[in-house]
This record gives sequence, C-alpha cells and structure tokens, in this order.
Amino acid sequence: MNHAYIVIMAGGIGSRFWPASTAATPKQFLDIAGQGKSLLRMTYERFLPLVPAERILVLTHADYADRVQQELPELPTPNILSEPSRNNTAPSVALAALHLQAIDPKATMLIAPSDHVIEKESAFHALVKDGLEFVRDEQAILTLGMRPSRPDTGYGYIQYNNNNDRLAGNSLMFKVRQFTEKPDLERAKSFIAAGDYLWNAGIFLFSVTTILTAFQEEAPTIYAQLTQDPDIFGTEAEADYIRRVYPDTPNISIDYAIMEKADYIYTLPAQIGWSDLGTWGSVYERSEKDESAVVVQHEGRHLVEDTKRSLLRFPKEKTVLIKGLEDFIVVDTPDALLIYPKSEEQQIKADRQRLLSDENDQ
Amino acid sequence: MNHAYIVIMAGGIGSRFWPASTAATPKQFLDIAGQGKSLLRMTYERFLPLVPAERILVLTHADYADRVQQELPELPTPNILSEPSRNNTAPSVALAALHLQAIDPKATMLIAPSDHVIEKESAFHALVKDGLEFVRDEQAILTLGMRPSRPDTGYGYIQYNNNNDRLAGNSLMFKVRQFTEKPDLERAKSFIAAGDYLWNAGIFLFSVTTILTAFQEEAPTIYAQLTQDPDIFGTEAEADYIRRVYPDTPNISIDYAIMEKADYIYTLPAQIGWSDLGTWGSVYERSEKDESAVVVQHEGRHLVEDTKRSLLRFPKEKTVLIKGLEDFIVVDTPDALLIYPKSEEQQIKADRQRLLSDENDQ
Repeated sequence: MNHAYIVIMAGGIGSRFWPASTAATPKQFLDIAGQGKSLLRMTYERFLPLVPAERILVLTHADYADRVQQELPELPTPNILSEPSRNNTAPSVALAALHLQAIDPKATMLIAPSDHVIEKESAFHALVKDGLEFVRDEQAILTLGMRPSRPDTGYGYIQYNNNNDRLAGNSLMFKVRQFTEKPDLERAKSFIAAGDYLWNAGIFLFSVTTILTAFQEEAPTIYAQLTQDPDIFGTEAEADYIRRVYPDTPNISIDYAIMEKADYIYTLPAQIGWSDLGTWGSVYERSEKDESAVVVQHEGRHLVEDTKRSLLRFPKEKTVLIKGLEDFIVVDTPDALLIYPKSEEQQIKADRQRLLSDENDQ
Repeated sequence: MNHAYIVIMAGGIGSRFWPASTAATPKQFLDIAGQGKSLLRMTYERFLPLVPAERILVLTHADYADRVQQELPELPTPNILSEPSRNNTAPSVALAALHLQAIDPKATMLIAPSDHVIEKESAFHALVKDGLEFVRDEQAILTLGMRPSRPDTGYGYIQYNNNNDRLAGNSLMFKVRQFTEKPDLERAKSFIAAGDYLWNAGIFLFSVTTILTAFQEEAPTIYAQLTQDPDIFGTEAEADYIRRVYPDTPNISIDYAIMEKADYIYTLPAQIGWSDLGTWGSVYERSEKDESAVVVQHEGRHLVEDTKRSLLRFPKEKTVLIKGLEDFIVVDTPDALLIYPKSEEQQIKADRQRLLSDENDQ
C-alpha cells in the first residue's frame, strides 16, 4: 500500500439539493447526512484508515479550492488539484494520473466521488485493499460494483462475466461484459432478475501506468492536450500549465472515454451500504429516524409535534415550531424555503426552475 | 370638529403573532393585514379624513417612540407621547387627557387601539363625527360597540339600554347597562340571543373635561399621581416629569378604572367591519384569498402548488417553494419558522412557551 493514493473528486455543482445546495456551496460541502460534518469530510475520513493524508488528493474546481482546504485543514495544500474549467471526469482523471505519475511512477490510485456515503466501512476497506493490490499487479481498470437492491433507473449498470474471475487477497474480481447507462424500468428489472448486474458507483482503481496507457490508446486527444509539456507535472509550474491547457480538453466522462472502450476492465462486487444520496428521499431513507419516522437536521431550538415520516432541515440559528406534517420535506435556508410532499420530490427540480425563471418573478 | 383629537394607543407588545411579532417589533408595526403597510400606519391613515395630522397623537412605550416616528414620518414629533413604563390603559388615557387639556381645554378626543382593522371606513367616519359631537355637548363617555356576529368568548361585551337613547347627528347613543369581561360560551350565546349586547372594541370618545372629572371621581390615585405639578403639561418639561411620575401610577385598565364605574357611559352601536386581528386565523379570515382560499403575504419570489385554505407569510428576500399544504399557517422570519395547522392555532402560544423555555434547548 506504500504506493497507493486516494483521489477524491469534489468539483460537482449538484443542484438536486436545493435550497440547501447552491452553486456557491454544493452538496459535497454540506452536512447532507446530518452527521455534523460535510460529505467531503466524511469521504476524506473514510479513507484515512487506508492511507495517510499525504497520499489523499482532492480534485476540484478552482472556485472550490479554498472551501476544500477549509473542510480539510490538515490536507497538504499541494494535494488539492484545481481544475480551471468543468470538462467532466475523463480530463480530471488524466490530470490526477499525470500528477501522481510525476510524484510516484509506481502509484496506484483509487478515485471516488466526494458526496456519497458508505455504511459498512470495514467491508469497504477490505475490498479497497484487495482491489489496490490487484491493480498494482495487473494491467486492470477496476470498478467497485454495488449489488443492486432495487431496479433503480437512476444508475448506470455493470454486467460482469461470472465465468471470468480473478482472485486478489480475499476478493474475486470479474471481467466486465458491458456498461449500460440509466436503463428504463423494464430493463432495470431484467438486470436485477439476471443477477449479473451491478450499480456503477463511480469508484475506480488502477495504476497510473495502466490508466495513462488507456488514455493514450482510447482517449489520445485528452492525453495529447495534457502532455504538451510532460515534464512540468510535479513541479511548481504545474498549476499554471494546467490553467492554460486544461480548458481545451474534450468534455467527456471517464465512463465513455475509457470504461466502455478498454478491454481490461474488471469489477469487484460490493455490499457496503453504499448510497449516492442523490435525492432528499434517499437522505431520508439513510438517516436515523425518531419514533415517528421523522428526521430532524437541526442543531438549534425546535419543537416538532404530530409530525410523521418527514425530513426537516433548518439553519442552526433558527427557532422552529412545526406541527401536523406527514410525509413532507422541509428545507429552510437563509435564502429559500422548501415545503414539499416527500413522494413528489422528483418534481422539485422542475418547480425550482419555474420558480427561478424570470417569468415567475413576483 | 376643530377641537377634536385622535389618540392612537401603540404601546402593546402583542405576543400572539409570533414569530412575526416580537417584543422589538410588536404587531402594530407589522403589515399583518398584508396591505403593504403596518397596522399603525393603516390606523393613522384611517383618521386622516377626520382630523389633520397635527391633531393626531400616538401614545406608546418609550422603547417604540422612534419606531412610531419611522412609521409616521409626517406626524409632528411632539404628538408622540412616550410612556416610561407599562401601567395599562387607565394611566395612558389620563396622561393623554392632561396633555390635551393643556393644549386645548375644549378638546374632545377619540382614543383607539393601533392594531385593529375597520373595513367600512366611511360608515366609521360618520359614526365618529356624530360621536365627537355628542361628547362635545354632553358629559358623556362614549364607546363604539360592535354588533357581534358570533358568540366570541375572546371579547368583552357591553349591554345597553334599548329604551334610553340620545340622538346626535344621525346616530343613536344608548346608555350602557353593564360591561361584561370575556364570558364563557354559554353566556356569550345568551348575549347574542338577547340582542342588546355589543363587543367592546376599546374605542372611546369623550371631552378632556369629562374624562378628567371621571378620573378625579373614580380613579383619584391616578389623577393625583399625574397632577402633582398640573401646570407642567404642554410645556417642554412635560416629558421629564412624565418619566418621573408615571411609573408609580396604578396598573389598571380604563375599563376597570372608569367605564365600569361611571354613570354617564354611552355606547354607539357600529357595523363597520371591525376586527381586532387577534389571531392568525382572524387575519386569514379577513384577507383576500386566491381561488384555493390561500393567503400569501410575500413580496418575493414564490411558487405555491396544490395548497388550500392556508395563510403563508415570508420575508421579502426569501424564495419559497411550497406544495401540498392544506389548512396550515406558515410564518417565516429570519429568526424563526412556524408551520402549524390552522385549526389548532390557539395552541401556538403554549407551544411557543415550551419551545422558548430553557428546558427545551436543543
């Protein structure tokens, strides 16, 4: 594990948690899980038992670099890699790999989103250790595949080859047959019935050698754009160079650029209580509830009566008196207030757009 | 009408409109009616067709004097009479009468709360004119009595003598038989059935001579306390003097001190669309509603869907998205949020006390 690095991707601008999340303070910087710390901080701490802070990097948009440092004051400042533009995940991964290669040519890396939660940390740690060992020894791109619990149409699916597995540590890695982007419900149901499909959680493991070879072969434009001056990585001039060359990389996801093309893609099936906390409803489902199945995310003074199966979130300074709500989401911020039926939360995004469009100015 | 003065009482600390009203900004300074102006301002403007600003006075607690001036910038500053302590309405009225007597010994005055609403202003103006004429010519203390529309147990009732009336202008003034404080429901029903009971709205008319004679006879302690230096009223030293002597007056209402004792009490029955806006429910009832019977008090951006029979009030700066509420009161302020079933609003006060007690600190 001495050459293992963790790269946390924290550049997203997730708009699904309005009004709590905003462009200025997106989801990863919020205590969405009600744990007293941000999702980014939770993600960072989840990896600390595996590698020291010196080998954890955070990839983020330049606008958020200060905020990342604020959330993770003990993270060495050079470990925050700033992207000058939002070009999706493929250029991000290439940037991180080129940076790590310069620091440690033997580096293996795990790259993961900053705004998911994992309940079973020790199971996760065991899988990650086996996975890092596997990608150290093999030319393999490994993705953690989550055992699906329902035919969710919001995720990408990974079909794996049950007959083509490799043992590393205590874990079996399976060759990936294909990736399928968000399927319709019928298809999702058939995936669950088939049994050889996993959810793509966006957690990838590889050595820098393997991934940079993959970029050279499968995404040569990105590779060429970022390696105009290959010797600049790891030097003081790297940040300036990135500011100059990064914006012109193609906007494409790592899934499309590499995963769906390369031949040496493996998946490690995981049952680790993973959730991407994609909606208020999933936050509600994952949170500890009181005897009325109510989740209150509030450090301030409140009285909640005759209220059931609801998620209630308020700024710390606010005094709150609530009575008689059932199956609601209430999210209050200094700028906005949302009171919405929990079962209809998919419509919040559209309503918010109606609300914020100029036509609806009141 | 040249000697007619209006005295608006604006010292209350009404706590029933929490979280909108606070000790710092009580009800009379808020736009509770959703009219774009405070109740005090509405009350002031209601009297302007009757008397010029120079003959409108506002009695308030010293803490609110600046706020009154802010709401009524055109009111001459000397017309704001500050009470250094809260000693209930009898000392207030005596203070106003002594002040006016010094300015105009022939003064008649109408004294009224600052936080009520009256829908039928011209009917009100006609009654006030007749009433002021009556109290100018007679030794009479006149109260406007509101024709009751329901057996409300929240008001005081005035029983009048149907056979003892006096004509002034176009109005009949009736001798009062008795005042009854808030009755129970049985009694309130019998009052309505009897037909000779009116609601006491706290609007009184009299000449300064009549009311000061009444104080001398019925409340001599108050009178003596305030007239230790009778020549000081109307001089620049009045305010200092009041600060010194007023706090030691007995704490008693004008109803108990004078109305229930004096012999020359009359009432003028009124049907003027009066409401004391005593609760959020009464504000809801009196407000214009949309097709879903929803009242939205908000100048800012909002989208309210599938919501019925509710009162919704938010700070101007706030963006609001609400769906699926029925029969609710929602009041948001920068400090507090109330979401409460409309039918249970009587319990808000008790809940608020539980919430704000130290035992409930979270």
